[in-house]
Amino acid sequence: MRTKAELEPECPVATTVALIGNKWKLLIMRNLLVRPWRFNELHKDLEGISQKVLTDSLRQMEADGIITRTIYPEVPPRVEYALSELGESMRPILMSMQEWGNSYKAQKKSE
Amino acid sequence: MRTKAELEPECPVATTVALIGNKWKLLIMRNLLVRPWRFNELHKDLEGISQKVLTDSLRQMEADGIITRTIYPEVPPRVEYALSELGESMRPILMSMQEWGNSYKAQKKSE
Repeated sequence: MRTKAELEPECPVATTVALIGNKWKLLIMRNLLVRPWRFNELHKDLEGISQKVLTDSLRQMEADGIITRTIYPEVPPRVEYALSELGESMRPILMSMQEWGNSYKAQKKSE
Repeated sequence: MRTKAELEPECPVATTVALIGNKWKLLIMRNLLVRPWRFNELHKDLEGISQKVLTDSLRQMEADGIITRTIYPEVPPRVEYALSELGESMRPILMSMQEWGNSYKAQKKSE
């Protein structure tokens, strides 16, 4: 349970951190930036995440309005997670993390 | 203890997430982007962080090379944490989080 101060902090960085300041949420965002994913696909791709943590993370992100959950009436029903417009607006954050990671890895290699 | 796969993942976003994909580390980075800070100052500013978590976070960040720890020979000795050149190179990530947080807060206010 997050406190009001955590959800509505004064500092804009803290605001963002309250929504995605967490390893798994950041990796979920990274995946959803490419295309919608199903639960089992995410579970398989995010090595080391438990079902419970993935479920909780997705629920929180849905409640925070950064992802959507769509149920397709098939047999068995297909459930897909996708970025909302708000989540999509976080793309520049993930892009700057990708850029930094790339230059860090290039530097490590040349050492 | 982090595994090799966590420290040297294939994906550049995961590389960055391994270093700062954590609420407290992101908030520490935010503070250190402004100026060097002492332990007690950080502890006071980061509401809700325990001494142990702050100590562990600073040690990991020092080991990862993103912050420096400088001891000034005063009585009592003064210890300051600052961004390393590598840590400073993460500024664009924090700036994009700040920008996103600002526009999110502005939007929330106008609703």
